[in-house]
Amino acid sequence: MQKRYLLTPGPTPLPPEVVRSQAQPIIHHRTEEFEQIFAVVRQDLKYVFQTNQDVLILASSGTGAMEAAVTNLHSAEDDVLVISGGKFGQRWGQIASCYGLKPTVIEVEWGQAVDPAKVAQALAQNPQIKTVFCTYSETSTGALIDVKALAAITSKTDTLLVVDSITATGVVPLPMDEWGVDVVISGSQKAFMLPPGLGFITLSKRAWKRTETAKLPSFYFNLTKERKNQVTNQTAYTPAITLIIALKEALELIRKEGLDKVFTRHQRLANATIAGVKALGLELFAAACPSLAVTAVKAPANIDAGKIVKAMKKYGVTIAGGQDHLKGKIFRVSHLGYVDTFDVIIGISALEMALKEAGYAFEMGSGVKAAQEVLLAG
Amino acid sequence: MQKRYLLTPGPTPLPPEVVRSQAQPIIHHRTEEFEQIFAVVRQDLKYVFQTNQDVLILASSGTGAMEAAVTNLHSAEDDVLVISGGKFGQRWGQIASCYGLKPTVIEVEWGQAVDPAKVAQALAQNPQIKTVFCTYSETSTGALIDVKALAAITSKTDTLLVVDSITATGVVPLPMDEWGVDVVISGSQKAFMLPPGLGFITLSKRAWKRTETAKLPSFYFNLTKERKNQVTNQTAYTPAITLIIALKEALELIRKEGLDKVFTRHQRLANATIAGVKALGLELFAAACPSLAVTAVKAPANIDAGKIVKAMKKYGVTIAGGQDHLKGKIFRVSHLGYVDTFDVIIGISALEMALKEAGYAFEMGSGVKAAQEVLLAG
Repeated sequence: MQKRYLLTPGPTPLPPEVVRSQAQPIIHHRTEEFEQIFAVVRQDLKYVFQTNQDVLILASSGTGAMEAAVTNLHSAEDDVLVISGGKFGQRWGQIASCYGLKPTVIEVEWGQAVDPAKVAQALAQNPQIKTVFCTYSETSTGALIDVKALAAITSKTDTLLVVDSITATGVVPLPMDEWGVDVVISGSQKAFMLPPGLGFITLSKRAWKRTETAKLPSFYFNLTKERKNQVTNQTAYTPAITLIIALKEALELIRKEGLDKVFTRHQRLANATIAGVKALGLELFAAACPSLAVTAVKAPANIDAGKIVKAMKKYGVTIAGGQDHLKGKIFRVSHLGYVDTFDVIIGISALEMALKEAGYAFEMGSGVKAAQEVLLAG
Repeated sequence: MQKRYLLTPGPTPLPPEVVRSQAQPIIHHRTEEFEQIFAVVRQDLKYVFQTNQDVLILASSGTGAMEAAVTNLHSAEDDVLVISGGKFGQRWGQIASCYGLKPTVIEVEWGQAVDPAKVAQALAQNPQIKTVFCTYSETSTGALIDVKALAAITSKTDTLLVVDSITATGVVPLPMDEWGVDVVISGSQKAFMLPPGLGFITLSKRAWKRTETAKLPSFYFNLTKERKNQVTNQTAYTPAITLIIALKEALELIRKEGLDKVFTRHQRLANATIAGVKALGLELFAAACPSLAVTAVKAPANIDAGKIVKAMKKYGVTIAGGQDHLKGKIFRVSHLGYVDTFDVIIGISALEMALKEAGYAFEMGSGVKAAQEVLLAG
């Protein structure tokens, strides 16, 4: 017997209410019953996305919603600006290139946040840029960027700001209407506490306006068609029914806790994780701009990060390693979604045991103690 | 208290094994545990698709897989032939047009099957046609076409045959390698006895060859990238983990029953449904070529089909009405997936009660009796 703990940045653990909701006979989607569920979900999604705009639900992963943002807002050869400071920033560039846009890429050192002044400068130099694509919480590096500052720049121009908020929505504030963000994207297996299989996307009024002139084709991810259906509580194509029913449960949990408290909880757990890691003498990978969803940590010199991940797994604790050139160099401990005080304690405790096994020199229990102190104060 | 019965052509009822498999803590997909599940699923999918080719799993509805077939195999302005005899045949034309192909459409009267000779003629007249798109079981009309005959035509040419087999796979045979079919598509919420959220697609060798020269862009639905990942038991983007775990259970049920017996079961249930409906003096909508997945029935003169659907719903039995111009004119009783003897009896019995309420003149019990006689013989 071994209890298992999932501390990865997606999928994230499922609340019992969500698990339970999936274990039901299926219902048909072209029914009043489904439409009533969908109507509640639509309202609650607006609350979590902090917007008055419709939040569309796609039967896809978050990447599908990213593709929808590229194809529904653009025509071939449109100039766009991609802010890339990690694997998911790169993905914006890949999708844009795939569909024949002309991306200018601001390369940000992995683990750093983009300097908004550079974005302002790029837009001033290239006023033909139609859209800025960015990643709010870069899951591959654990870095958070200043989306509010970017929106302050783009909202004064005709340039749209599209935000991959896949691991940020429901973790940190993103009042998109207030800040002037044009497109926000997320996915079910993150702070939404659901299995993967749903992508979310919401557009500002001026982003919807842009869809009217955008010429790139889209069928499965045609947002205009989706909106037309979803405002009637239906979807253009067969929806992922069980996940939408589970979404209703998860959104109810968020609504009951209150979004502000959800943000405070993530802040508290991130602070505790950071304190625990630092007390062990380890360095954050994104020290200047840590994401509150996932803490990326540099492995100690001479210890492979993969070895730490593997050792923690032995105790039943799953965390994520580094991706691409960060493989072996960093590990990532998550604290988003259905997580609370003792998920952090478990994570730091397992980390300590893994570090001890790897021969790293530190005082056993010092990380847990530091985390406890933050959690006590919280 | 009212027991509820789902006799719709997707979603279809879920076996208890599938329901149960969803009520578990989530696991991470970048793990050996998931890869072992995925490896089993891949093998079993080949069995159900009757092919030696890889069957790719997409996190989308079946329409996403249809789009993948259009974008991965073609370049702009390619000539294609669409066989359209219902709502889903039309969809092929819509997707093809959306992506800039030049579809020639063979319009088949709804409820009829295409005459293969017409396809041969169209290809002879237009040898530049790259692909024929068809719908094996047209869910909107309950008509089944002769895919084997179509494949006999296309396999002698350079033209590919793409089959929407969404409500046919796991219901009627489609030995694609043997017949020379190039692409087969299905979806999870049909004979696979799962909730919606997974699309399936498999390509012949020559279809894969075509992908090498096809120029239409695709990112989320890029099949080359998916295959590269899926042969290693991973997916290009986050998979719908819970549905894939449930798929393993469902495929095991199919494997244990044996595909031949699955086909026989569907044939038996379709025969019984047809006998029941006919005994009530009703006419099939696709009398000459009934699908074994769903039986489409013409409503009696002066009775709105929607009224029958509604009356059956009152007893807890959900069937489907007609779509588009068939709305009010036909109703559709399904018998695909997790269905057996008494699902047919329930369907016919509820139909009789609904007809009685609607003032239709017939001998009560005569439909059930006719169905029983077939089921007894079966």
